[in-house]
Amino acid sequence: MITVLKQGTTQAQMEHLIAWLRAQNLDVHISHGHDYTILGLIGDTGKIDMDLLASLDIVESVKRVTEPFKQCNRQFHPDDTVITVGNAKIGGGNFCMIAGPCSVETEEQIIEVAEKVKAAGADILRGGAFKPRTSPYDFQGLKGEGIRLLLEAKKATGLPIVTEIMNANYLDLFADVDIIQVGARNMQNFDLLKELGKTDKPILLKRGLANTLKEFLMSAEYIMSEGNQNIILCERGIRTFDTYSRNTLDLTAVPALHEMSHLPVVIDPSHATGKVRYVPPMALAAVAAGADGVMVEVHNDPMHAWCDGAQSLNPEQFADLAQKMRVVREAVTQ
Amino acid sequence: MITVLKQGTTQAQMEHLIAWLRAQNLDVHISHGHDYTILGLIGDTGKIDMDLLASLDIVESVKRVTEPFKQCNRQFHPDDTVITVGNAKIGGGNFCMIAGPCSVETEEQIIEVAEKVKAAGADILRGGAFKPRTSPYDFQGLKGEGIRLLLEAKKATGLPIVTEIMNANYLDLFADVDIIQVGARNMQNFDLLKELGKTDKPILLKRGLANTLKEFLMSAEYIMSEGNQNIILCERGIRTFDTYSRNTLDLTAVPALHEMSHLPVVIDPSHATGKVRYVPPMALAAVAAGADGVMVEVHNDPMHAWCDGAQSLNPEQFADLAQKMRVVREAVTQ
Amino acid sequence: MITVLKQGTTQAQMEHLIAWLRAQNLDVHISHGHDYTILGLIGDTGKIDMDLLASLDIVESVKRVTEPFKQCNRQFHPDDTVITVGNAKIGGGNFCMIAGPCSVETEEQIIEVAEKVKAAGADILRGGAFKPRTSPYDFQGLKGEGIRLLLEAKKATGLPIVTEIMNANYLDLFADVDIIQVGARNMQNFDLLKELGKTDKPILLKRGLANTLKEFLMSAEYIMSEGNQNIILCERGIRTFDTYSRNTLDLTAVPALHEMSHLPVVIDPSHATGKVRYVPPMALAAVAAGADGVMVEVHNDPMHAWCDGAQSLNPEQFADLAQKMRVVREAVTQ
Amino acid sequence: MITVLKQGTTQAQMEHLIAWLRAQNLDVHISHGHDYTILGLIGDTGKIDMDLLASLDIVESVKRVTEPFKQCNRQFHPDDTVITVGNAKIGGGNFCMIAGPCSVETEEQIIEVAEKVKAAGADILRGGAFKPRTSPYDFQGLKGEGIRLLLEAKKATGLPIVTEIMNANYLDLFADVDIIQVGARNMQNFDLLKELGKTDKPILLKRGLANTLKEFLMSAEYIMSEGNQNIILCERGIRTFDTYSRNTLDLTAVPALHEMSHLPVVIDPSHATGKVRYVPPMALAAVAAGADGVMVEVHNDPMHAWCDGAQSLNPEQFADLAQKMRVVREAVTQ
Repeated sequence: MITVLKQGTTQAQMEHLIAWLRAQNLDVHISHGHDYTILGLIGDTGKIDMDLLASLDIVESVKRVTEPFKQCNRQFHPDDTVITVGNAKIGGGNFCMIAGPCSVETEEQIIEVAEKVKAAGADILRGGAFKPRTSPYDFQGLKGEGIRLLLEAKKATGLPIVTEIMNANYLDLFADVDIIQVGARNMQNFDLLKELGKTDKPILLKRGLANTLKEFLMSAEYIMSEGNQNIILCERGIRTFDTYSRNTLDLTAVPALHEMSHLPVVIDPSHATGKVRYVPPMALAAVAAGADGVMVEVHNDPMHAWCDGAQSLNPEQFADLAQKMRVVREAVTQ
Repeated sequence: MITVLKQGTTQAQMEHLIAWLRAQNLDVHISHGHDYTILGLIGDTGKIDMDLLASLDIVESVKRVTEPFKQCNRQFHPDDTVITVGNAKIGGGNFCMIAGPCSVETEEQIIEVAEKVKAAGADILRGGAFKPRTSPYDFQGLKGEGIRLLLEAKKATGLPIVTEIMNANYLDLFADVDIIQVGARNMQNFDLLKELGKTDKPILLKRGLANTLKEFLMSAEYIMSEGNQNIILCERGIRTFDTYSRNTLDLTAVPALHEMSHLPVVIDPSHATGKVRYVPPMALAAVAAGADGVMVEVHNDPMHAWCDGAQSLNPEQFADLAQKMRVVREAVTQ
Repeated sequence: MITVLKQGTTQAQMEHLIAWLRAQNLDVHISHGHDYTILGLIGDTGKIDMDLLASLDIVESVKRVTEPFKQCNRQFHPDDTVITVGNAKIGGGNFCMIAGPCSVETEEQIIEVAEKVKAAGADILRGGAFKPRTSPYDFQGLKGEGIRLLLEAKKATGLPIVTEIMNANYLDLFADVDIIQVGARNMQNFDLLKELGKTDKPILLKRGLANTLKEFLMSAEYIMSEGNQNIILCERGIRTFDTYSRNTLDLTAVPALHEMSHLPVVIDPSHATGKVRYVPPMALAAVAAGADGVMVEVHNDPMHAWCDGAQSLNPEQFADLAQKMRVVREAVTQ
Repeated sequence: MITVLKQGTTQAQMEHLIAWLRAQNLDVHISHGHDYTILGLIGDTGKIDMDLLASLDIVESVKRVTEPFKQCNRQFHPDDTVITVGNAKIGGGNFCMIAGPCSVETEEQIIEVAEKVKAAGADILRGGAFKPRTSPYDFQGLKGEGIRLLLEAKKATGLPIVTEIMNANYLDLFADVDIIQVGARNMQNFDLLKELGKTDKPILLKRGLANTLKEFLMSAEYIMSEGNQNIILCERGIRTFDTYSRNTLDLTAVPALHEMSHLPVVIDPSHATGKVRYVPPMALAAVAAGADGVMVEVHNDPMHAWCDGAQSLNPEQFADLAQKMRVVREAVTQ
C-alpha cells in the first residue's frame, strides 16, 4: 500500500503516523520526493482501513498495490479452473451452453424443453424453482416442487441442472442439484456466500447490477475463503442510464475477468437484454469475446411462460443460435 | 395498464390478443386512434407480465397506470406513518437524530459515545454488531456480543437502539433491539424481508446502491405484505460514475418518497459521502430538504475506529452539527 | 401521445385541459376506464411539452407513442442506408474496417500506418488532426497540417480518410476529407450538427458518453433535418460506475440501432476500452453482434504515440485481428 | 506521478523505462519495496500519457499526485474568487439568487418576470435566448431578439442578466450581457471555452450530465488558461439510473468543489429535478449545503411557457421560496 503525504507535513506529524502504522505490524518504507513524501507500507495491509488513512489531514492519497482477492486471483493461480458436472466442462478452453426456462412450471414443460435443448446441443439445463421477484405479489416459483421436476428432467435427459438458491436454510433441497446459482441481487448476501463456501457444489455466481468486477471477485473470494473453489462467474448486465435494453451487457468483462482471475466466465444475454430479439446477436458476441459459456432462456411456449417470457427463445430459435455459436466459437479459437 | 398496438395490426391479431387478455381475467377497453389502437386493461393487472406483452410483434408499448406497491402508497394511506420507539418519534412532522459508531467495539466505547450523543440531543443510538464487509478478510463485527453491549448502552442512557441484521436465523438476538436495520446490500434479499415482515419490530430499510425509488418501495412492500407496517426508509447514496465521494447522495429522494409514500424518510450522510468533512453540510441539506431524520456516524476516537473511521464525526463535531440541524429544521418548518 | 388523467379529476378540469390541447391544434380522443381516463392526442404532438403536461395536477402520466425522430427512423425508411467513399461501402450488408492512429504526427508515421493497415485489409484510414483533450495543457493536434498529412497518405494509398471536426469555422479545411467525424463530446453541439447538415459529406457521429440511443438518433436527425442524409452511427462506450475499462462498450446498441434506424452502425473498441489487450476480443464481439464496421486505433510505434498509445494496436496485431474479423463476419452472415 | 512496477520486472526492463522517462525531461526517484518497486516521477508530468504508461507490460499501476488543474485549484489560490456584476456579488461569503424564465418569449413576459423576481429579492435575471434542444424540431429560442428583450428587462429593473451562448460566432450579441452561460451539453466544447477565455465576461459554466468534478474543473481551466478568471461553477444534476426526477442533483458537489477550487458554486434545482414540486426543497437543501447561489426558473404563466414550464415556479412560489432561502442561509452562516 502506498500513502502519499501532503506538502507541508511536518516531521513530527510524519513520525506520529509512522509510529501508528508500525503499531499495525507494518514495515514503512519512506521515499522523499521534491513535492511530496511517499510511504510504502509492507506487510498485511489487508487489515488497514484505506478510507481512514485517506481521511487524515496530512495524507494526500492512498493506493493499494496488491488486490485484496487472493484465491480467485490469476496472479497466484495461473492455470484456468475447469469445472466438471456430468459430461459438461466449463473453463479451460471448453465451451458450454446452458439453456432452459426462466421458471419451472410443469413436468411436461421442463422435460420437453430439456429434450429439445439437449437435441440442439445444450450441455446443462437451467430452470428457476425459487424466483426472486421485485414484487411480493408476483409468482415466487414452485420451490421444492420445482427442484423435484428439474431432477425428473435430469433423469429423462442426462443433462446436469443449475438452479438458484435464495436462502441457505433450503440447502438440503439442493442435494442433487449439479450447480447452485446465486442471483445478482444476492451477490453481496455474505451470509449466503459463506454457507455455500462450506459445500462442495459448483456455484454459478451472478454479478450484481451495480457491482464492479473487483467486488464481484471479492464475492467469489467469500465462497472460496470457506473452502469451495468451484465457482463460475456470470455477467448478466449492469444498470446504466439507458433503458432500451433491460440492462447493459458488459462484454468487456470477459477478457477482463479472464485476466484477473482463473475462474470461468459465462454470459447471460437473456436477463441482460430482456428482449428475445437481442439475445442471438449478444450470445454470438459473447462467444466472440471469448466467454467460456452462454446461458440462454428457452421456453417451449414463451407466450404462456409464467415469467420472463419476453426474453425466452423458443426451441427452434435456440437450435439455430446454438449452431451459429459453434461456428463463431470455432472461428475465434482456431 | 395501457397497451398500444402497432400500426398495421390486423383485426384477427387484435382479437387473438384480446381473447388472451380476457383469459387472464381482465376487462379490455378498446380505443381506436388515427395511427394506433389503445387497449385499456382493467382488473388485477399486477399478474400480467409487462415485458412479455411488450415483446409481442403487434405491441408498440405497454404502460402501467397504477403502481404495484399498495400498502406503502400514499395514494391509499394519505396520513404520515409515525413510528415510536422509547421517547423518539419518526415521521409525521417529528425530527429525529440517530447517532453512534459504525461498529460496536467495547463496552466503554459504546457507552461513552451513547452518553455524548445523548447529551448533544440524539434520539436514538446506532451501532453495528453484524457488519457486511466487501472482503471476507475484514472485521465482521462482534455479532451477538455487540448487541449485548448496545443493550448495556441503552440501559445506561435510555436511548433506543438500531442495529443491522444480515440473516433471519439470528432474529432471536434482536429481541430487545428497538429498530432492526436492513443494509443496502440486502435491500432485495427477499427472504430476509419476508421474515422481518412477520415481526412487529420497526425496520430501518436502506436503499440499495443501484435501486430505483420504485424498487425501494417494493422492498418495503415485501415487509408490509407480511403484516409489519413499521418501516423507515433510509437513503444512503447511490452509485454513479463519479468517485470524489463514496456514493452520490440523492436528496431529491426526500420529497419524492414523501410524495409516493406515507413512510418516514431518514438520510445517512456518513455512508453516502464516506468523508467526515462532507457529513455536516449534507446533514444540514437533508434537514432543509425535509427529511424526517438524519443518521450520523459518531466515534469517540475516529483514528482508532475498527471500521469506517474516515466517515465518523467525533462527539464535539456532532454536538455542533446537532445544534445547527435544529436551527435549520426550525427555519424550514416555521 | 397518450395522457392518463388522475382519479378524482373533475369534468370541468378535464374540459379545461382538452380546450387547451385543442388550442394546440390537436385532436383529443377520450376513453373512460374504471379507474382512470385516457386522452389520446392526435396531430403534430412533437410541439407539445411532455414535461409540462406531466406536471399538471390532474395528469397521472404522459406517454409518447411515436418517436420524435423521423428521417433516421427505420419505420419510415425500411431500407438500409449505404454510404460509399472511394472503394469502401458502409451499411447494407457490407463490412468495413477503419484503422489508423489516434493522432497524425508526421508524414512518415501516417503514410507508414496507412500502407500497413491497407495491406492488412483496412478500407478507410483514420487519424486525428484536431484533438479534443480534457486538459488545455495537453497536445491539441496538428490541426490543418494534420489534415494535409492525411491527404498525403490518401494519395499514397488510395484509402479514403476520416478525421474529426471540432468547430464548423474550420469546414474549409475538410474539403477533401471523405468522412467528417463528430466526437462524443460534441454529439449535442447542435450548432455544429446543423452546419454539417448543410454539407454533403458523410458524417461519422459518435455517441456521447452518457447519451441514450434516442438522443443519439435525435442528433443524427439534427444533421438530416438540414439535408445531409449520409450518417454513420458510432458506439464508443458509455460511462458507468465501473472503471476497469475506460468506458463500458454497449454492444447491444448494434441490434437496437439497426432496429430503430436505417443508418449503418460502427463500433470503436479502442476508445471504449482504452486498453490494447481488450481491443481484439471486443472488435470480434462487435462483428459477431452484427456491426457494419469496426474502427480501430493502429500505430506503428505505440510506445511513442503522442496520445492514446495505450489503446493502439501495432500493425502486426491489427493484421492478425483483421483476419479474425473476416472469419467471424463470414461465420455470422453465412 | 507514481508508477508501480510489477513483480518480476527485470533490471534491464526497468532501466529501459527509466531512460524513456528521463528523455521526457522527468527526474525519476526509485524506491524498492519487498514486493514491488516504485518510481516517483518529478517534473512536468502533465505531458505524460498516464494510460500509455499504465499499459506497459511491466507497469502495475500509475497514479497522479498533483491535479492537472492549476488556475482553478484552491491549493494555489486559497482565497475565494468573488464575481461582481452590477449590485450582485457571487462567492466569498455572499449569497446570490438568480431567477427568470427558461426562454425569453415576449417583452411583456420578461419584464413582468424581472420585476416580480426583483421584488422577491432576486439579484440576477436569467432567460434563454439561444436554446439547446434535443430535437431539431423544437423551439430553438428567439436568439438575438431574445437578448434584446433581456436587455430591455435589465434597463427596466437594473438587474444584471445571464443567458446562454451556443456558438462563439455570436459573441458580439453578448456585448451587454453581464454573465455568459455555457450549457451542460457544451461543457466540453473546448473551442467555445477557449473563445470565452479570451473575453473578460463572467462565465457561468454548467457541469455536464456525466462529467466528474475533475473534468468540470478542467473545463474551467480551459477558460482560465486563456486569461479569463471570472468563472461561476453550476451543478445542475447528473445522469443516473433512476428517472423519478429528470436528473440526480449532486449536492455533495458543493463542499467538494469548495474544497478543490476557489471558484463560486451555484445550484440549479430546476433543470436538475424537472418538476416544480421538487424545486423548493432542493433549493433550500442547496443553501444549507453552502452553495454561493441558487438559480431558479420562474415564469409568470408556467402553463403557457414555450419550454420547460414543468419546472418553473410562478412568481408567488418564488417569493415564498426566496424568503425561506434567506432564513436557511442565515441559519447555516450565523
